[in-house]
Amino acid sequence: MPINVCIFGVSGYTGSKLLFHLIKHKHVNILAVFGQNSIGKNLTELFPNISESSDLKITSFNDFKFENVDLIFSCLPHGKFQNNIISNLDLNIPIIDLSGDFRLEDKTIYEDFYNIKHKNFNLKKKFVYGLSEVYRNQISKAKYICNPGCYPTSILIPLIPLLKEKVIKSGHIIIDSKSGVSGAGKKLVETNLFSELNNNFYSYSVEKHKHFPEINQELMKINKKVSFTFIPHLLPVFSGLQSNIYIDYDGDKIKDIQNVLLNYYSKEPFVKLNFKDPQKLSNVQGTNNISINVFSDYEKKRIMIISCLDNLIKGAAGQAIQNMNIMFNFGETEALL
Amino acid sequence: MPINVCIFGVSGYTGSKLLFHLIKHKHVNILAVFGQNSIGKNLTELFPNISESSDLKITSFNDFKFENVDLIFSCLPHGKFQNNIISNLDLNIPIIDLSGDFRLEDKTIYEDFYNIKHKNFNLKKKFVYGLSEVYRNQISKAKYICNPGCYPTSILIPLIPLLKEKVIKSGHIIIDSKSGVSGAGKKLVETNLFSELNNNFYSYSVEKHKHFPEINQELMKINKKVSFTFIPHLLPVFSGLQSNIYIDYDGDKIKDIQNVLLNYYSKEPFVKLNFKDPQKLSNVQGTNNISINVFSDYEKKRIMIISCLDNLIKGAAGQAIQNMNIMFNFGETEALL
Amino acid sequence: MPINVCIFGVSGYTGSKLLFHLIKHKHVNILAVFGQNSIGKNLTELFPNISESSDLKITSFNDFKFENVDLIFSCLPHGKFQNNIISNLDLNIPIIDLSGDFRLEDKTIYEDFYNIKHKNFNLKKKFVYGLSEVYRNQISKAKYICNPGCYPTSILIPLIPLLKEKVIKSGHIIIDSKSGVSGAGKKLVETNLFSELNNNFYSYSVEKHKHFPEINQELMKINKKVSFTFIPHLLPVFSGLQSNIYIDYDGDKIKDIQNVLLNYYSKEPFVKLNFKDPQKLSNVQGTNNISINVFSDYEKKRIMIISCLDNLIKGAAGQAIQNMNIMFNFGETEALL
Amino acid sequence: MPINVCIFGVSGYTGSKLLFHLIKHKHVNILAVFGQNSIGKNLTELFPNISESSDLKITSFNDFKFENVDLIFSCLPHGKFQNNIISNLDLNIPIIDLSGDFRLEDKTIYEDFYNIKHKNFNLKKKFVYGLSEVYRNQISKAKYICNPGCYPTSILIPLIPLLKEKVIKSGHIIIDSKSGVSGAGKKLVETNLFSELNNNFYSYSVEKHKHFPEINQELMKINKKVSFTFIPHLLPVFSGLQSNIYIDYDGDKIKDIQNVLLNYYSKEPFVKLNFKDPQKLSNVQGTNNISINVFSDYEKKRIMIISCLDNLIKGAAGQAIQNMNIMFNFGETEALL
Repeated sequence: MPINVCIFGVSGYTGSKLLFHLIKHKHVNILAVFGQNSIGKNLTELFPNISESSDLKITSFNDFKFENVDLIFSCLPHGKFQNNIISNLDLNIPIIDLSGDFRLEDKTIYEDFYNIKHKNFNLKKKFVYGLSEVYRNQISKAKYICNPGCYPTSILIPLIPLLKEKVIKSGHIIIDSKSGVSGAGKKLVETNLFSELNNNFYSYSVEKHKHFPEINQELMKINKKVSFTFIPHLLPVFSGLQSNIYIDYDGDKIKDIQNVLLNYYSKEPFVKLNFKDPQKLSNVQGTNNISINVFSDYEKKRIMIISCLDNLIKGAAGQAIQNMNIMFNFGETEALL
Repeated sequence: MPINVCIFGVSGYTGSKLLFHLIKHKHVNILAVFGQNSIGKNLTELFPNISESSDLKITSFNDFKFENVDLIFSCLPHGKFQNNIISNLDLNIPIIDLSGDFRLEDKTIYEDFYNIKHKNFNLKKKFVYGLSEVYRNQISKAKYICNPGCYPTSILIPLIPLLKEKVIKSGHIIIDSKSGVSGAGKKLVETNLFSELNNNFYSYSVEKHKHFPEINQELMKINKKVSFTFIPHLLPVFSGLQSNIYIDYDGDKIKDIQNVLLNYYSKEPFVKLNFKDPQKLSNVQGTNNISINVFSDYEKKRIMIISCLDNLIKGAAGQAIQNMNIMFNFGETEALL
Repeated sequence: MPINVCIFGVSGYTGSKLLFHLIKHKHVNILAVFGQNSIGKNLTELFPNISESSDLKITSFNDFKFENVDLIFSCLPHGKFQNNIISNLDLNIPIIDLSGDFRLEDKTIYEDFYNIKHKNFNLKKKFVYGLSEVYRNQISKAKYICNPGCYPTSILIPLIPLLKEKVIKSGHIIIDSKSGVSGAGKKLVETNLFSELNNNFYSYSVEKHKHFPEINQELMKINKKVSFTFIPHLLPVFSGLQSNIYIDYDGDKIKDIQNVLLNYYSKEPFVKLNFKDPQKLSNVQGTNNISINVFSDYEKKRIMIISCLDNLIKGAAGQAIQNMNIMFNFGETEALL
Repeated sequence: MPINVCIFGVSGYTGSKLLFHLIKHKHVNILAVFGQNSIGKNLTELFPNISESSDLKITSFNDFKFENVDLIFSCLPHGKFQNNIISNLDLNIPIIDLSGDFRLEDKTIYEDFYNIKHKNFNLKKKFVYGLSEVYRNQISKAKYICNPGCYPTSILIPLIPLLKEKVIKSGHIIIDSKSGVSGAGKKLVETNLFSELNNNFYSYSVEKHKHFPEINQELMKINKKVSFTFIPHLLPVFSGLQSNIYIDYDGDKIKDIQNVLLNYYSKEPFVKLNFKDPQKLSNVQGTNNISINVFSDYEKKRIMIISCLDNLIKGAAGQAIQNMNIMFNFGETEALL
């Protein structure tokens, strides 16, 4: 018996990516898809490249009866789900929220970085942080999942084991990240126009980015002695994300680092370790993979971890499905290969 | 003594292109630049890549005294200049309007295709159609210029001499045109987002495009026996425009066509005739040139004229400066090489 | 029991697209993959984004025993398969050749347009032209398939039914086509460099393109009274192809044309008819679909058929798999949704 | 009286950029342009977008008499100028070499990093390192100039004053640089194809890049106590380069750093200091400017210097012209605004 799911925010880039994968999932039945601007439109009309024709129409969740729903996905931008919607839901239904609304454990920090009030912060403590490879056990027992951000996923998957196993004990880490444009969603602002981004590249939010406290919170859980600088950039590509992580080199540590990553991840289906060649965005675009490279620089003064993923898949919709697969004990790679 | 000019709509793609060229013009002094959203900003702040530092700030035209102005350029989108602004100007000052507001001779057609009322249509008859190479004489005596559209420029420059010299006498012409995205300006609509246009291509306004009646009006002035189909497309590039013009082949006519174009244009500084290789957008991007190729197809059944230009320069700001140079008897290529 | 297949030319864009789909096919076992430059490399190393890890290595076909092979795919560039390889194969094994080597029925025309001698033209008569929707019956009984070219697929699928049903009886058709760059393969020539193609666009092979005689041959089979002009262009995108087909308008014919297409294709899983909005490349990229739009121009003088497909999928590897599915009586959409 | 110059390697991206600027230079007469593959071609044929028609043809330098030449530019790739050509020149003629051949002071390091023998290393000591803003005085008296690399220019202009003025005294600097594709020239390798680079991004030469020893040599001249990591990346844009330079934060040092840069560069026409907003590639593309931003990260643990330039102009041809302007006492901005 497949489970019944519904999707909030299906018409955005993350929502439609989620839809395209779920429609192929053999244990999932999509019961309803909610959107704001496209109510009444058939999915096939909205997404002519959808793989299977479907009778589903975009509807308003106000008119929907949730009684048969087994899982709710929310792909709404931050603020909307915590603010208006979650209060009206039957809280017995499991939720995977892909926004940043329930990731931060400190309400003040959330409201400072997201620049919005949190109306349902009391629910936060019920959410498990859905970094699949790291928190698989907790995810399998969770009712609510907050799905990690795209930048944090690319940074935490390599760093958490290294901090846990103490091959990095202290010091300052420089993280220089670059993301494709789809991370910004369909927001109608001048900086998202083709004419402004094509052939262009730049750093943004250099002094304060929403993902800084999320990365900080998760790293501090493991080791309070490290600090880091995080600078994001916008690439003139649709999807794909690369993080360069520069850490102090200390004698033979590069082998230790490689060994820890091998121990943790060599059997993971979605983690691709490569210590020979830097990977390209094209190696991960369209997949749920995260590729991790480890190198030293010319003078053996810094170790560089280069991680790449598709921000819409492993950085959002793909990891959400992976988390669902873990929660419902489906094959973890189902609908993701 | 340089002339004093002011620019309406300087912050758009056409307006800033006009500014970048005028700032190098040795006979022009930019007295004022008007914009809506950036009032108070210094030009150097708004355009860090401007070639000369300037003390000019964006201002509101409401506060400006036009008494020393010798020429007004309007780069506002259609509707705004005819509707609100021109009524308040001193009509003794010469104007070059880059919008479509004063190009069409039939008010009903304007209002139908532009979907807006025309508030100052009585002024239309004072405007000369600024197709520089074709109407140079009229332009030199004109007070008001309506600058041609980008698609019409690419189509009329090759076709008008062929109709005048009757190497094309009748028949139906197919025009398949493709333009870079900057033609759409900075309009904040989903279809202008990077994520929607990158890696994409499509036909638009296939049944009704604003430039159809402009092309039609100008061709009909020369020959009423030809008809044409005009289909525009959007290319995933910032600027550049190509029109393929398919006309009936009739015996040795290809030589006649080439000869007419040579007679009319071989001494024109901005018209590049080439009968050997199809030109690329890269050959004209950043220039005020229009390149014109003439070929026959494999079975000698159709002649194809391929014309390329930069939609922001020869298709807009560059031709506007060329028209100013003609009006004020400056060297025609000044600030355009 | 799955069938055993092998692939020639797996490292090109078409070959790897074929591999990526076949690896998901439930009735196919990939027995061997042949390449020239990457011999000895593991597939997972060569294609880090492959969906399933595989033990297959690129090998040389010289060392391979074909006795258990049920089907051979050749993704080699034209000239190589007909010239060197097919002579050495066991001709009892079915073949799907994706090159242009066995599409043309006239040896002289092949040698003229492809500029190479044909060494095995005697085999041509055994090949069925694999335009899946049109020649499904013949394909189901065929042993050898020549897979159609990308441009011809986009043009023949809409035009053949219209000629067969005589809603087009005579006249001249203008075809203005645009293709993504992957159609040119990995050929190391200056015109294929990123720096030459990014932000660019142009017509090419305007007077003589390899696909002209293929389109001509197939149209002439249906109706000898039509003629056509075919002009291809290069788009700055990786994959995707659009053909604009301009035909004479004759009274109410647009309805007739739409009805014929509906009769032929409304039940086809990969043909998407749309008479309301022009489709975009993004609607078909990554799919085996061909979208077909039918419009009239502003003055009802021409009917335009706009067809879009992904040149690497419906225009190459996808149609090849569709043909295999027909030949072996698998579900026609298997591995293609 | 204009000076007579000739250009080696005019058909490459750097050579043609040099040509396009020099042709507008009021004190320069281009006497000859040398190329390998295009000998006999007219400049206007090779570069249809050149601003002035020219009678110059590409010639072979073997047939050329250098007696009236006042300055030689070489835009040849490294290896070619030092190896074959310089030995045959009249060494009384001034030279500006844009390759890496005469930048490194240690022959062993050159031969190690460039993987080629140096045949004329004895000439190296006569070359002045042409970092215009830093070595203006030496350049004005120089006969031979080795023009700096694009990455080194972006890194040395901000760092040298900070090391000289000792606001950075010791410690390790992380440099994460990204360049447009034109930096790779027209080399016909698979990694330079449009289909491989479009929509892509990646680190390259992470452990050993040709520009590492050049940066190292120039920094060590000022301060031997700093070390650095340098990692270059390839951006899917034609031109433009950004370097992020991460340095230790130490109390109020950000003000000191900003003040040193203001003292050194606020009057420089091509250095644009901005301490408010990160600049974009689009702010410098097409100009000879270098923009320099200074920020601190969220926790005030690192200072980030972000520098942007156009790799073909300030990073190559533009700086070469600037150096010529200094050598010959022309206005330093001539032909560069």
